Order: sequence, then structure tokens, then C-alpha cells
Amino acid sequence: MQVVTSPLRIGIAGLGTVGAAVISLLDRQSADLAGRIGREIRVTAVSARDKGKERGIDVARLPWFEDAVALAGSREIDLFVELIGGEGGMALEAVEAALRSGKSVVTANKALLAKHGMRLAALAEEKGAALAFEASVAGGIPIVKTLREGLAGNSIERVYGILNGTCNYILSRMELEGLSFEQCLREAQALGYAEADPTFDIGGFDTAHKLAILTTLAFGTAIDAGAIAIEGIERVTLADLEAAAELGYRIKLLGVAARTAAGIEQRVHPTMVPRSSAIAQVMGVTNAVTIDADAVHELTLVGPGAGGAATASAIVADIADIARGVRTAPFGRPVATLATAPYAPMQLHEGGYYIRLSVYDRPGAAAAIATRMAERSISLESIVQRRRKGSGSEATGAVPVVLITYATHEQTIRQALDAVVADGYIAEKPQVIRIERE
Amino acid sequence: MQVVTSPLRIGIAGLGTVGAAVISLLDRQSADLAGRIGREIRVTAVSARDKGKERGIDVARLPWFEDAVALAGSREIDLFVELIGGEGGMALEAVEAALRSGKSVVTANKALLAKHGMRLAALAEEKGAALAFEASVAGGIPIVKTLREGLAGNSIERVYGILNGTCNYILSRMELEGLSFEQCLREAQALGYAEADPTFDIGGFDTAHKLAILTTLAFGTAIDAGAIAIEGIERVTLADLEAAAELGYRIKLLGVAARTAAGIEQRVHPTMVPRSSAIAQVMGVTNAVTIDADAVHELTLVGPGAGGAATASAIVADIADIARGVRTAPFGRPVATLATAPYAPMQLHEGGYYIRLSVYDRPGAAAAIATRMAERSISLESIVQRRRKGSGSEATGAVPVVLITYATHEQTIRQALDAVVADGYIAEKPQVIRIERE
Repeated sequence: MQVVTSPLRIGIAGLGTVGAAVISLLDRQSADLAGRIGREIRVTAVSARDKGKERGIDVARLPWFEDAVALAGSREIDLFVELIGGEGGMALEAVEAALRSGKSVVTANKALLAKHGMRLAALAEEKGAALAFEASVAGGIPIVKTLREGLAGNSIERVYGILNGTCNYILSRMELEGLSFEQCLREAQALGYAEADPTFDIGGFDTAHKLAILTTLAFGTAIDAGAIAIEGIERVTLADLEAAAELGYRIKLLGVAARTAAGIEQRVHPTMVPRSSAIAQVMGVTNAVTIDADAVHELTLVGPGAGGAATASAIVADIADIARGVRTAPFGRPVATLATAPYAPMQLHEGGYYIRLSVYDRPGAAAAIATRMAERSISLESIVQRRRKGSGSEATGAVPVVLITYATHEQTIRQALDAVVADGYIAEKPQVIRIERE
Repeated sequence: MQVVTSPLRIGIAGLGTVGAAVISLLDRQSADLAGRIGREIRVTAVSARDKGKERGIDVARLPWFEDAVALAGSREIDLFVELIGGEGGMALEAVEAALRSGKSVVTANKALLAKHGMRLAALAEEKGAALAFEASVAGGIPIVKTLREGLAGNSIERVYGILNGTCNYILSRMELEGLSFEQCLREAQALGYAEADPTFDIGGFDTAHKLAILTTLAFGTAIDAGAIAIEGIERVTLADLEAAAELGYRIKLLGVAARTAAGIEQRVHPTMVPRSSAIAQVMGVTNAVTIDADAVHELTLVGPGAGGAATASAIVADIADIARGVRTAPFGRPVATLATAPYAPMQLHEGGYYIRLSVYDRPGAAAAIATRMAERSISLESIVQRRRKGSGSEATGAVPVVLITYATHEQTIRQALDAVVADGYIAEKPQVIRIERE
């Protein structure tokens, strides 16, 4: 056991909900943490934009730095907690300053890691400092530790999850209450679950940042967030949710990284998951991650993906590890050994597809569509054509046709749908939702 | 980063399914593990009862010790993996020998830990050795690491889970197939999920050993497996499973440890859980653990609770941590600081109850029962009396009456039921199943 008696001095930059929660939690748990670690953890300096803001905690007693970068480089602290946010700018400068001075860094900043994670990890390794980011993915769920340490003996086949609470809240409300996407988005904004500009969440970009981190931890490949195929939930309709329910599925926005014959695949999109699967049960703002691996087979973690206290829980766990002297490579393996092979392109994705078409109600339409699929050897598990209240279009006379395909390739489906569109039988752009097997 | 170039030499005692799986996994993952850790992990000696047994792995190349204790104390190894089993005897002797010689120990032996965990942890701390036991609870689920490290900043309110795959398999089959307990038990034995003498599993004792370990990790109290109230699943009937389904519950054998006004409560018993809860979805041999804590709110982990590869996954993760030089107190906090306050007695347990009575079909019987409850201020959420095929008794003319109570105390329920029995209205011992709120 390491014998250290001096307190570990923490500097925190960024005092929003999460920063305030970290200070409260460290305060409340200080005796227990000191007992666990054999060393006191003490917040000794802070930095934020507005000193006077009401935060529900007493920061007047703490030395205040106007400049986060100065705090990061200061000799007053041993460990720097970055809660500024943003993929560059002040957050990047401050993290670099801390690492360069040999200090360990704890951050919740997935955007920063998705963009600069490799460079920052290399700097941390060079300086013998820790760079810890449990809070950056799935909030209070210890998924980073699980992938980096708990499953260290496994070869991972796939990691996928619900990584954005805003999207899961909206899809859950749409399904359970029969409300439109727009209504649920407004509701989420009113409740503070969604930002005034919700693009980052509902467009899938937040999920993609988190997925980029999980991919590297799971597969030992260098982060390449630019290689992720991203679709948001904006185009998911009530008609899709109803069809999913009838067919035994639920629709979730998933981030998926999988080992395939074509390489490591990374994608974020609305996904049909079997209604009986563990991930389908996860409703509201809750997050969940499932890992398929050779030894452990299947492991699922379910918990809060956001919120001050839950995020602070992850940050404090990182601080405790560092305080105990634990130094692991930030992404589980040394940066220099991470594979930089290109990721698999989306066109080569293989899986089942849900397709909803708005078809002009003419003789031969369904047969023509089925023929276009058959020409490309796409096998159909089911084809459902039905006029239902509200689902047909009065103006065009079009009716919905829903197809479920067996496994095929993304490019094959796209070619078949291009042919269907060219045939002139459909009134709207086809809706395509990928199916994820358990 | 620690610079160590010599391999970590592993000695494994016990080469059953798990031991063989550990050797296979270390072999298969050796390059990746060495990359992660910066150090090779090498199995350098083994010990088991029967050298000639076919194990699907080549052990002839490895130095063989007839005596596990001699292996544990040998200078040929740096880390000892105990997979002998049993709460004392050879397993205890070998683990003590290894720790006394300053070697770290990895074990999957919950019985040993439940009985001697405090003494062994104290010895490990004294010698600066690690004592790691991720595999001892819930197989491949990293629940020990999660409680010890991942939630280090939390004050935990409750931890509960499905910790025995045999029991969950039997209860799942009974419910889904409408089979009797005896039929499902025989089936589980045929499939190798249950031992020839199944008492240890179905009586709740295996779950209790695991719960004792979780309690200490969660609450910082010294292990006291003798303080656990234990009931097995032998008395759960199809009538109970059907009533549970009608009332919106499922029955699971849970281990529960909770912080209450009367102290830390530890109990193992068949439990009614809300059908919509995450834990209720867990069917078959799968395990699951839910943690309620102040910061993270609720976290659930679901995965394989047994099996060679899944258990080996946990053992290899422990080995990897130790190889990286990580030394944490085995139970998260130093043994000397663990509270030894007495655990809360079961009579003070507070919660809702499901009660199934076999009542003679006489006027006034239901009213008399309700009166006995009311006398002790037990509020009833529902009372259902109904004659159903197969649920009444032809011989006695008794009919089933099912009560669901609001929260009350265990001793109050027991007193009320004693009074009901004394009234002479019921034909069989009352069935009592506790309800666990989400």
C-alpha cells in the first residue's frame, strides 16, 4: 500500500451544475474517501466565468483563478478537473497546460476527447500523468472503467448503447404518449433535457463523440470520430414507432461499434431493437451500454447518462483512482500501439432493414417493389401494406408499405430503393431504419 | 507509467472448467494483455487433484505441483490463483501461504471469503499484497470493481440482485412453462445448471455468501454472513407465480443489503419485484445487480453469473490490475476501519408483503383475516379470494386468498399470521413473500 500523507490538491475549472456537484460530493464523502485512499482529497482552487453566480455551494472560501489555463499550470494543485466544455479553446489549452506540467487531468469533455484524445493521451503517457474521463460517456455508468479494466481479458465483438438521454426521452415519449417528434422535443426543452439549439443531441453528434471514445477502448483503434456514420432522430415518425411495435421492435438512437469482416464499423442512427432485449427496456433519459465479448458473452450496464450528481460520481471515482496512484494508459493501451487502420465504410454495413414507403395506391405497386428487392437478392422477412387512419396521405392517395429485410448490405438496399424511386411508385423519400440483432 | 519488464508468473491451483478457461484466455489474449500492461503474464505452474484428466488444454508443458499449498508458497510464482473451492481446508491453507509469502492472490471462492474474508484481507494489507475476487460474485459482471472503485464517491443505500443462476433458471422456467419446482429442478440438473445436491443453490446459501461480500463493499461493514436472513425457493409454487403475474410482479430470488433506520439489513429470499423493473426482465441463468446510491441514483449491471469463460474474464481482469501494480484494500476500505456494528435483525424489516392463505370456504373467513390485519394496523393494498382450477383443495375445501399489504414490519406480519392460524380458518402454513420496491 502506498504511503502518502499529504492531501491531493484538486483544481476545478468550470462551475456549472457538474462542477458544483463535484465540490458537494467531495465535501460530503471526504472522510470515507480519505479512509478508502489513505489520503485526503481537497479542492484547493477553482476557476469559472462568473465569480458571483449563485451555485448552492460556498466557493468564496476557495482561491479563485480568473484564468483556467493559469489554474491548470499552477503549483497550488496536483490534479486538474476540466469542466469548461467545448472541443477546443480554453478547455484544450487548460488540459494541455496541466498535462505539460505533469499534472493528472480528469475531464467530462467528450467533444475534446473525440477531437484531440489521441494527442492528449500521448502527452499524458509521456509525462506519466493520468488522463481520466469516466464522466465523458454515459454519465454515472462506469463504462470506461469496465472496458478499460473490467473486460481487459476479452476480445470485444461489439459495443452499443443508448448514449444520449435527450433522444431516448423523446423517442420514449413519442411511443408511450403517441406525440409527435416536435411536441416531445418542445417538452424536453421545457424540462431542461434538451438545449435551445437541440441539433447536437438529436442530430446524433453527441452520441458520436461518446461512441468514438468507446470504440477506442473496446477495439484498440485510434479515435476517428470523422469516420462515424451519423443519422439523428429527426425523421422518426409515429408511423415508424407504431410499425416497430407491431413487428416486435422498439426504436432507439444507438451508437454501435462492431468488428466486421470489413473492419471496425462505427455508426449512430435510429435503430430497431427487439422489444424483448435489455436495451429496449431502457426508457426516458436513462442510458445503457451492452458489450458483446468472447469471454463475458454479453454484459449490459444501465444507469443515469447525465445530471450533476451522477456525472460527479464518475469524476470523483476517477479522482479516487488517481489519488491511489493508479496510472493506466488513458485508452487502456498505449497510444503508440493503437491501430490506425481505416474504419469500415457504411456502404459495407450488413444487417436487416426496416423500410417504410409511401406508395401510390395503384395495381402492381407492391409487386414492383418486391421485384426490385428480389433483383438484388434482398430477402424479405415481411411486407405489410395497409390503409390506416392518419397513415395514408389524402393529397397523394399514397398508402404506407412496410418491408422488413433479412441481412443484406447497405449499398444493396440503397441501390434497390433508388430503383424503386425511379419506378415512380412512391410519394415520399423512403424511410430506412437499420435493425440491430441481439 | 511503471516500467517492469519481467513477466508476472502465475500459479493456478484447481483446474476444473474455470481453471482451464483462465489458462485458455491468458493464452489467447497474451499479446493484447502484454500491450495493455507493459508486462507479459505467464502461467508458470499449476496444481490439481488429477494430472491425467482431459481438460481440453495442454498442461503437460507446465510444472505440476501435487500440493496446492506448496505451489502457493513457491518462489516459482508471483501471483497465486485459487480455484480449489470450499470454505476452508486446502483452499484456505493455500491462500494463507501465498499471502504470508507476500504474493497477491486472485480467487473465485465466495464461501472462503464469506467465512475468512476479513482475516485474509487483513493479512493481504499487512503484507502489501493484493487479494482480488471479482469472480466470486456474479461471475463475469464487474460488480466488485464497480462498488470498490467505480462508485467510490457514493453513499450507497441499497444493493440487491439475482446472484444465483440456478434459482433464476428454475423460477423463469416455472413461470414461462407452467412447470412445477421439482420438474424445473430436475431439468436444471440434467443441463448441469444445478448440482446433484442442490441445497446450496436453491436454499439461498450461495446467494448469501455473495451478498456478504457485496454488503461489505457497499457499506464498509465487516463481513458477517451469519447475520443474513436466508430463505430458499423450495416453497415457491405455480400459484404464487400466477398470482404475482396477475398483480404486476415477478418472483426472483434476491440477495438484498440495505441501509435502514435499524442498521444494515442483509437478507436472501424469494421476492416480488415490479414486472416493469429492470431486474424483473432478467431471465434464465443470467445474473443482475442493482445499486441505489446518493450520487448515481440507480445503476444496474446484467450479465453471466457463471460459466468457465465468463468467470475467467473476471479472474483475468483481476490479474491484469495486479500486474499493473494496482493495490487497493481488498474490500475498498482498510479492514481495521470496517464497522462491526451489529446488522439489523429481520424482525425489524419494513416493507410490503404478499401473503397467500389456503382458507376454509366458510362465511366470515375473509373478514376475520382482514380484522387480524387491521388489529395490527396493517393496511391492505388488495385482497383477492377466488376459486380457480387446481388452486383450491378438494380434500379440505380450502380456497386461496391472496393479500398484498402496504409497508409494515416483519414481526407485525408474523404476529398477525399467528393470530390467523390460531383462528383455525386456514388449512396450510401461510405463504409469505416480501415485496421489494424499485
